[in-house]
Amino acid sequence: MKRNGKISNAVIRRLPRYLRILEELSSQDVQRISSRDLSEKTGYTASQIRQDLNHFGGFGQQGYGYNVNDLREEIEKILGLTREYRLVIVGCGRLGRAIANFNYTYNQGFPVIGMFDVNPEIIGKTINDIPVADVRTLPEFLKQNSVDIGVICVTKEAAEGVADILIKGKVQGIWNFAPWDVEEAEGIPVENVHLSDGLQALIYYINHNEA
Amino acid sequence: MKRNGKISNAVIRRLPRYLRILEELSSQDVQRISSRDLSEKTGYTASQIRQDLNHFGGFGQQGYGYNVNDLREEIEKILGLTREYRLVIVGCGRLGRAIANFNYTYNQGFPVIGMFDVNPEIIGKTINDIPVADVRTLPEFLKQNSVDIGVICVTKEAAEGVADILIKGKVQGIWNFAPWDVEEAEGIPVENVHLSDGLQALIYYINHNEA
Repeated sequence: MKRNGKISNAVIRRLPRYLRILEELSSQDVQRISSRDLSEKTGYTASQIRQDLNHFGGFGQQGYGYNVNDLREEIEKILGLTREYRLVIVGCGRLGRAIANFNYTYNQGFPVIGMFDVNPEIIGKTINDIPVADVRTLPEFLKQNSVDIGVICVTKEAAEGVADILIKGKVQGIWNFAPWDVEEAEGIPVENVHLSDGLQALIYYINHNEA
Repeated sequence: MKRNGKISNAVIRRLPRYLRILEELSSQDVQRISSRDLSEKTGYTASQIRQDLNHFGGFGQQGYGYNVNDLREEIEKILGLTREYRLVIVGCGRLGRAIANFNYTYNQGFPVIGMFDVNPEIIGKTINDIPVADVRTLPEFLKQNSVDIGVICVTKEAAEGVADILIKGKVQGIWNFAPWDVEEAEGIPVENVHLSDGLQALIYYINHNEA
């Protein structure tokens, strides 16, 4: 995805990691952090960090470091985490439930407002207080409700069809967990998650482990 | 993780994506692909692709492109996907079940040989033919069985404790889904998966969408 001439995708991808660490520091009442300490915690070099954070104005002060709360708030603003995003989850098998649960437990600010499935045995059941609806009612649901993000947790084969419905229903973004790359269409950004990519990288490191 | 002086982590991270596309092409009986077509499918530039693949010897031929099967096999070899990796999953809530299921459906070559939990209501149940055992039996299980990868699907709070058991049990790598960075110890590589990182990047793109 290339949507911004100024900030590279690589930098965007590093921001959530900074944010996680700053949140952790903030919860421990740490007020300042040096780029060297941030380097140790992130694994990025101190010069990389200074370069990254300079994109967003000069937070750091020589010999003083970064103000944890200011930097955290600034990254939240840049990412757009200052408002709620309403999600629907399509596909309520184990993965869909896991995502629903994850959001319920850890991700405040991302309420799941609808869950959908094709399976009559699952339709009507309740997951974290949300009843699972028939996927055939999804287009109407998208008309009636303002949905920000559609989460695809269906099989590889069904993914493209679900993406079409979400795009027609004018969601703002798609978070896809099916092992099939959903292509961007009509300018709607898609985040394709491939769990096995991380596993394969891990296997590379196992096989090239010199420890 | 920095374990190889020659191949950068960034390249390693791109290999699974190449592999996915090559597998897809291979299943469609496509025999050759140009770096330009690979560029279209991956989103990487053609020159990036040539550079990446040159790390592993000169597969490409000017005006001919890459041999899909050769390149696929080579990437599999580099990653180490030419043998099986035996997994145990610790934490059999929705996420652990989803990973078990995902591996069962899509990830041949990664048999789950043990599942563990603390919850007496889950212990003894069977998930994809594997009975869930008491996590207190995990150290003994690791002694008796050769386990390649430990998958952590427990809560944030329990993650570090589980990682300790896995490390003492001499797994070769850890695939961690708890929202808490497990630190590498005793040279055992760790892949920390943060589902919300992708969601946050998606939200950035939603907010900077110029379409």
